Amino acid sequence: MVENDSLSEFLASAVDAAQKVGEIIRKGFYQTKHVEHKGQVDLVTETDKACEELIFNHLKQLYPNHKFIGEETTAAYGTTELTDEPTWIVDPLDGTTNFVHGFPFVCVSIGLTIGKIPTVGVVYNPIINELFTGIRGKGAFLNGNPIKVSSQTELISSLLATEAGTKRDKETLDVTTNRINSLLFKVRSLRMSGSCALNLCGIACGRLDVFFELGFGGPWDVAGGAVIVREAGGNVFDPSGADFDITSQRVAASNPFLKDAFVDALRHMV
Amino acid sequence: MVENDSLSEFLASAVDAAQKVGEIIRKGFYQTKHVEHKGQVDLVTETDKACEELIFNHLKQLYPNHKFIGEETTAAYGTTELTDEPTWIVDPLDGTTNFVHGFPFVCVSIGLTIGKIPTVGVVYNPIINELFTGIRGKGAFLNGNPIKVSSQTELISSLLATEAGTKRDKETLDVTTNRINSLLFKVRSLRMSGSCALNLCGIACGRLDVFFELGFGGPWDVAGGAVIVREAGGNVFDPSGADFDITSQRVAASNPFLKDAFVDALRHMV
Repeated sequence: MVENDSLSEFLASAVDAAQKVGEIIRKGFYQTKHVEHKGQVDLVTETDKACEELIFNHLKQLYPNHKFIGEETTAAYGTTELTDEPTWIVDPLDGTTNFVHGFPFVCVSIGLTIGKIPTVGVVYNPIINELFTGIRGKGAFLNGNPIKVSSQTELISSLLATEAGTKRDKETLDVTTNRINSLLFKVRSLRMSGSCALNLCGIACGRLDVFFELGFGGPWDVAGGAVIVREAGGNVFDPSGADFDITSQRVAASNPFLKDAFVDALRHMV
Repeated sequence: MVENDSLSEFLASAVDAAQKVGEIIRKGFYQTKHVEHKGQVDLVTETDKACEELIFNHLKQLYPNHKFIGEETTAAYGTTELTDEPTWIVDPLDGTTNFVHGFPFVCVSIGLTIGKIPTVGVVYNPIINELFTGIRGKGAFLNGNPIKVSSQTELISSLLATEAGTKRDKETLDVTTNRINSLLFKVRSLRMSGSCALNLCGIACGRLDVFFELGFGGPWDVAGGAVIVREAGGNVFDPSGADFDITSQRVAASNPFLKDAFVDALRHMV
């Protein structure tokens, strides 16, 4: 069992790391418009790798016995199995398309799972300077102020977030747009901002009412945001209504009032 | 003929007005989460009306001979015909759904047409403090720094923005999602942020590459943004490729390299 004191220390360490890489992301963000397209891709890869290395080095020095799972490391060396050990799960740069285009929804996401449960979460958007944090059992915060999910009870008045995804084969795209078509009859409107972690934080602070995404990159997109949503009073679940599985590349989130209606709206589609 | 000096003065007056109502919008933005749903709708209407009144009073005092077209005034008293006279066209609060939900893409949009041509434009997002300005022939700016459209030349690498609209009848929704389906094969990804004026500014500063919207509220959604896009080196046009008509509730925008490919992608759909 990890003590609460340690959890607070883990959070502080993750915030330190997030703020350090935030500077790198911010610098790269304002550079991307000045490099050629091939250079942009390189810049993303370089920024991604530099940020992941910085975060891992920072945390490994403090917690040499913890495990680490990162998007870039996984891309280079293959999947690391998630165990019950304290495990830092990191997306150094969520919203890479936004990063390339200069669209200000980019973030670093750092989550710590203990017994596979998301326990500490940090999601930091260094462009508009929003730092979301959460510790299991201790609440969720935006720039230090407590946040909570929306109090919306009607799906038809809800703001939905989802993404178009990255696959462009006809079958996947048709399923994606048919889903959007069906959902637009049932909600007030739709937002697509291009960052899974920031969509989760949008649910946590009540800017968004319902969110789902399928087929995103991996657990690093959701490990930080999941604890923040739950600590803000929200639910994180599989879009089918089943329990959330951090390794499944499927996620849905909402306030508790909307969950059943949302799962019902998604039925037979996910 | 209106002198350049006067245009700079008109812009300064519009910026003053935008910053004043920005305070009201900011205050309301952080209140909406604390009122009941019926109260939210009232708050929007009240904020909208109060802001439009403030802007009109401010500008009418300075320019008593100018004409005025505003979303709220039009809703209350019907359409005012656009003439060749200097005409202030105002959306006091663009992104009302975002305002209600606390999603930080809201703005005030102020445009001045002379000879029906958008000549001065101010679009101000008071939540993330972004002030877009433009004067015909004198460039476009974000918080005082010159901006230009993206240099993207390939539609397939472009970031597209559009909106789901407000109509929820089956025919309109099917057309909307079929259009999205078709376009997703041709661009990199899609963003929906819920503000027409801010989408135009996204094109102007190169965050977005291509944007179109059909069936939005009226000329107040585009009068400010149109001059900002053009002064940033972009094109504003009818989604069919025809000349832009500010009164048509149809708009598309892109950098000059992408226009033809974008119009081609939209062909037979708009």
